[in-house]
Amino acid sequence: MANEPTFEDILQAYGRINSYIHKTHVLTSRSLDQLCSANIFFKCENFQKTGSFKIRGVTNAVLMLSPQEAAKGVATHSSGNHAAALAFAARMRGIKAYIVMPRSAPPVKREAVIGYGAEVFFSEPTMEAREEGLKKILEKTGAVPIHPFDDFRIISGQGSAALELCESVGKLDAVLAPVGGGGLLSGTAIAVSGTSPGTKIFGVEPTAADDAARSFRAGRIIRGTYPHTIADGLRTNIGSLTFPIIQQRVTNILTVPEEEIIEAIRLVLERMKVVIEPSAAVAFAVLVRHRSKIPGKKIGIIFSGGNIDTSLLINRLRTSCSKQ
Amino acid sequence: MANEPTFEDILQAYGRINSYIHKTHVLTSRSLDQLCSANIFFKCENFQKTGSFKIRGVTNAVLMLSPQEAAKGVATHSSGNHAAALAFAARMRGIKAYIVMPRSAPPVKREAVIGYGAEVFFSEPTMEAREEGLKKILEKTGAVPIHPFDDFRIISGQGSAALELCESVGKLDAVLAPVGGGGLLSGTAIAVSGTSPGTKIFGVEPTAADDAARSFRAGRIIRGTYPHTIADGLRTNIGSLTFPIIQQRVTNILTVPEEEIIEAIRLVLERMKVVIEPSAAVAFAVLVRHRSKIPGKKIGIIFSGGNIDTSLLINRLRTSCSKQ
Repeated sequence: MANEPTFEDILQAYGRINSYIHKTHVLTSRSLDQLCSANIFFKCENFQKTGSFKIRGVTNAVLMLSPQEAAKGVATHSSGNHAAALAFAARMRGIKAYIVMPRSAPPVKREAVIGYGAEVFFSEPTMEAREEGLKKILEKTGAVPIHPFDDFRIISGQGSAALELCESVGKLDAVLAPVGGGGLLSGTAIAVSGTSPGTKIFGVEPTAADDAARSFRAGRIIRGTYPHTIADGLRTNIGSLTFPIIQQRVTNILTVPEEEIIEAIRLVLERMKVVIEPSAAVAFAVLVRHRSKIPGKKIGIIFSGGNIDTSLLINRLRTSCSKQ
Repeated sequence: MANEPTFEDILQAYGRINSYIHKTHVLTSRSLDQLCSANIFFKCENFQKTGSFKIRGVTNAVLMLSPQEAAKGVATHSSGNHAAALAFAARMRGIKAYIVMPRSAPPVKREAVIGYGAEVFFSEPTMEAREEGLKKILEKTGAVPIHPFDDFRIISGQGSAALELCESVGKLDAVLAPVGGGGLLSGTAIAVSGTSPGTKIFGVEPTAADDAARSFRAGRIIRGTYPHTIADGLRTNIGSLTFPIIQQRVTNILTVPEEEIIEAIRLVLERMKVVIEPSAAVAFAVLVRHRSKIPGKKIGIIFSGGNIDTSLLINRLRTSCSKQ
């Protein structure tokens, strides 16, 4: 087995999953182009099934299970998009999904996972408790654990978003993708290198969760805990399988402060009329802040997801309405 | 001159404007389809230039001006999408736009109009003051007044959104469009009757601004003032040119209460990841409430615009972030 997925693996993953997922729109915005002096192509994985790119990797992993493995079901611990995606993909194959969720997960995320038919087990919110919970389930059920990023099947599936982007818009000067565990960024890097060799690849991260940027500079994985970023999808540490791929293929990892992430959400809501989650906004925020470090005019941005708690967006509207 | 625009007028308007506007996406949503037991096709005029369908009608009107008329510029009074659209279309033709705006117009709307290069005059927020302001400007400048809806050129341009919708998705059982002054609804009715004769056409309105519904039932225009709906685009009374078209071609006008308009915005934000303004949400809210009155499975909805004050959506997010 190669020590990283190949471009061929991504093509195969795409062939495997492509009838189960949306080929998402690529949107453009004249006014955001002006703001950045660039032609930006936004790959809208926020419109993807389950609201994020995560469905690509787990669909690939679930479809690659042997019938014997599939019969036992799949399991993971996650509070977010990976949980919803795995529950959805398992239902699609007609197998069981066991999900350990921290009690602190937002009700809307719990409901989504339960709505997709997964069996949910609540744990204390620490990583130890989540891993302990998962271990017990694996022992009891024999289910196959599906890691959110440190898994070649997952990385290959995630790479298919960039594959579609490059196919739709042709040669790009640069592509920006967020990095939490690194599944999306490493898959994107392999896909873009394969389709469009000269294109630069940038990882993006909140300054408040900059473990990937620091690891990239240090040349070794530096772990930490980062509860304070609004970009909940990017609190995770970089993975041991994803990191070497990123080291080898990514041009740089750039960071932005929290207020610029919110400003990016606002600009995208106002100018594009599109809802993105904070993790997805980081790439556009980075482009605004670090425009001079990103070469060329034609730039791809992966809007990784749109699962923001809508009560954060809508409550003010209700108040304003009841006052009228 | 015919007493209403013909289908041919709409085709001509579309030919005239189509290189100046976006052919907007038609989006679908599995989960909203399930909620309504329907296949819904959302025509996303919220993604249109200036953020609403209004650019279609004014572009048609501005392009139809003779060189002599154009040299004097165009003028209107409006606090909303019509003002922004007229300013944009005038700049596109390289002519002056004079806009009377009520002092009460939201800063974000003022800035958009000024940003498009229009000359803005502020008036008291009453209809009398707005009309008086416009009259003075017309006397002084000789500019051509462009009415927001009671104008055949405007109606013909607005109809082009439904034309694109019908072209993209084929025969629909029903189409729903909001009705304020009636430009969009009357244009939609002519376009849909021409392309797809059996399709039912529904107007939709807030219960808190139901002058079109009451006029439709009474068979004559009933005027009123409706400051209390959140759907600011639909506070206008139905027009004297648009009403007869609506009477003749529209199946029914259905209404919804305010809280269901907000719930529709929430559902569209959460499930489709798309931002719509309250006026645009009314059609989906009506579909949810009055599903049994709307025949068939294949239903088109015109998302008329996306210009919602983003501070209403984003402030809670800022608060939540600063607390972390």
